[in-house]
Amino acid sequence: MAFILKSHKVGRYKEDIMAIRFSKVLENKKQSDLGCLLALTAQPNIISFAGGLPAPATFPIKELTEIAIKVREKDGSNAMQYGPARGYMGLRQAIADRMNSLYKNHGMKTVDAKSIMITSGSQQGLDITGRAFIDKDDVVLVESPSYLGALGAFAFEQPKFVEVPTDHEGMIPSELDKILAKTENAKFIYVIPNYQNPTGITWSLERRKAFMEVVNKYQIPVFEDNPYGDLRFEGEEIPPLKAFDTEDLVIYSGTFSKVLAPGMRIAWILASETIMKKFDEIKESTDLCTSCVGQREVAMYMNEYDFEGHIRENCKLYEHRRNVMWEAIQKYFPSDVKCQCPHGGLFLWVELPEHMNARKLFEVCIENEVAFVPGDAFFPASAKNNFFRLNFSYNDDELIIEGIKRIAKAMKEYK
Amino acid sequence: MAFILKSHKVGRYKEDIMAIRFSKVLENKKQSDLGCLLALTAQPNIISFAGGLPAPATFPIKELTEIAIKVREKDGSNAMQYGPARGYMGLRQAIADRMNSLYKNHGMKTVDAKSIMITSGSQQGLDITGRAFIDKDDVVLVESPSYLGALGAFAFEQPKFVEVPTDHEGMIPSELDKILAKTENAKFIYVIPNYQNPTGITWSLERRKAFMEVVNKYQIPVFEDNPYGDLRFEGEEIPPLKAFDTEDLVIYSGTFSKVLAPGMRIAWILASETIMKKFDEIKESTDLCTSCVGQREVAMYMNEYDFEGHIRENCKLYEHRRNVMWEAIQKYFPSDVKCQCPHGGLFLWVELPEHMNARKLFEVCIENEVAFVPGDAFFPASAKNNFFRLNFSYNDDELIIEGIKRIAKAMKEYK
Repeated sequence: MAFILKSHKVGRYKEDIMAIRFSKVLENKKQSDLGCLLALTAQPNIISFAGGLPAPATFPIKELTEIAIKVREKDGSNAMQYGPARGYMGLRQAIADRMNSLYKNHGMKTVDAKSIMITSGSQQGLDITGRAFIDKDDVVLVESPSYLGALGAFAFEQPKFVEVPTDHEGMIPSELDKILAKTENAKFIYVIPNYQNPTGITWSLERRKAFMEVVNKYQIPVFEDNPYGDLRFEGEEIPPLKAFDTEDLVIYSGTFSKVLAPGMRIAWILASETIMKKFDEIKESTDLCTSCVGQREVAMYMNEYDFEGHIRENCKLYEHRRNVMWEAIQKYFPSDVKCQCPHGGLFLWVELPEHMNARKLFEVCIENEVAFVPGDAFFPASAKNNFFRLNFSYNDDELIIEGIKRIAKAMKEYK
Repeated sequence: MAFILKSHKVGRYKEDIMAIRFSKVLENKKQSDLGCLLALTAQPNIISFAGGLPAPATFPIKELTEIAIKVREKDGSNAMQYGPARGYMGLRQAIADRMNSLYKNHGMKTVDAKSIMITSGSQQGLDITGRAFIDKDDVVLVESPSYLGALGAFAFEQPKFVEVPTDHEGMIPSELDKILAKTENAKFIYVIPNYQNPTGITWSLERRKAFMEVVNKYQIPVFEDNPYGDLRFEGEEIPPLKAFDTEDLVIYSGTFSKVLAPGMRIAWILASETIMKKFDEIKESTDLCTSCVGQREVAMYMNEYDFEGHIRENCKLYEHRRNVMWEAIQKYFPSDVKCQCPHGGLFLWVELPEHMNARKLFEVCIENEVAFVPGDAFFPASAKNNFFRLNFSYNDDELIIEGIKRIAKAMKEYK
């Protein structure tokens, strides 16, 4: 073969060319070292607070088995066939009904099932949104800090991330206004107003209203990611941004991953028809449709089982585990380590004294067989190194206490 | 609000700006009218040969119900939890085992389960591949004609499609060689060597070998899409291109959509580790992982049920329906309409006399309550208007015969 190659004057020689040339996006993409770091946390002896996994004890296996049988027996031919890109209408209707019962009293416009698209996990909604809006060097505005998985999905479209100053009540509207006034190519704002990932912060009602005034002023789309809203341990229900969305700018996303079962990969997006038509095109090209059988199972669970009761049980367990972690932190962490107690969700956010680096602490923690996610990756534009995220939903009481003790020990050993 | 807007000198006024600005790719994307056209085929009185749907009668509902119970009872906690981006090892192993038993005697290197990624339908594999390789204006080489869904997925990355001349034995290697010799930015070749969509053509063994020699000469990656390979009605098994892939250039894709159940959305990709590492990044960003419960169900079906026997049953049914359609075509279509009888798969490709336009015939067919897919959309670079695609897997004998009669009637009415 080599002889033939050298004896023929073809346009390119085998020797001249790179065997495989990936797209520029991939070639230029900064390879995050976080993956390698987190791979370390998967060792069996390590107590990991790094993931965002629900507790397997919450999965309603018995009910999901009954449902699996019923769906296959009653509607097997449709469940096993291709379905529409926007999703199974039975599930979209069940989601619309639930959103209406939760939020209509808070002033939200009636949700029409037709405006809902089922996605393969909320991650797919993030990916679709990035592809629909972002061109290279466009600006995406995010809370500071923001969710890693969203930043990662959007990064494929090569935007510039701008962190909008954020305090304990959420993104600061006056700061957002200032940034939007001077930013020409801002495409959308990505926010998690309930029990934010990674900070656990919930936006106040006033903050939400003020935020939406700025949004309406600039007519900029918003991606409202709400995976944790149902995991409320205390305080009143605060309506989503979507309830104040008079101009159809909010893309609202919810998921069954945190309150039912992530392994089913079922989530949804609610948006205006203008946006949804573009999303249809992308959804169809990326996976044709989400699991038709999975969609029917979730719909049946919502319609025929006690979903609200199930969510209340989840909340009880997670509230208890948050309390266990919070008390252990109070007891074992040094007093110069700051931490705010979240009112729901899955995460606790820890601030170290400024001289400490969470990556270095992570290394000491791994030696002590305990792990978390170092916080720097959650800040896409600034470089803050003295934060880390703890998950309190997955481990049981004993492991939580032991893990927090180990982190406290690592803090003492930190040089 | 309007008053405030006008009284403040903000950078942009509400009046000045478009409410929502999508990405340039989406804004520039030629909106295919095929969607609207095919929407017409969904009317209940229309006999549609337009889709590519398997026959629901082939779905092994009873077995899949038993499996659903067993998976949830035995392994519910893992089935309902998040899983690895590359997929559930049990399914990857079952796929590797089957590929080895089918193709090792044909000289294929032993497939390692680690080199397999599970995707949410083969459509996702196409999307991931497009994103991994294509930059705007790069060249993707395809058979002439080629599969619509692949062209649609790749189109999001804005490549130039080059149709490589193709005859009844497949893509013509000498023509491919000529094109590659003068094409600098060719990123990969997309082909369907078995029972191609839309033509039904199967590449000969000699053609496959000669094709791979050209591929190796230019060291260009190949996406070998093999959704229909198991649906062989007659002739010997011809090994896939992957069996001749001495330089790890072939990305092989298979799916359970045509031989088990498309509603589960489970397919796979087999590729070198260099390629797979890039695919991992994209897969994780697009949906984290494919349905963990669905993956376990398919694995159990492969391991504990008679998958090969099930495939044979599918083939019998589809061979019968192909025969019914083929005989009806011989009987009712005018003699100047050409058509080659496929040896497997789901589709028949029809060539009209050059003066006839398949879009116009489609309109007459809709009036006669029968539908197909006009062929022009399968030619991304050339403009051939006298072809159309018929699906023979979905409708029963009576509908097939009646539908072909109606098309024949429309051909007579065509002006």
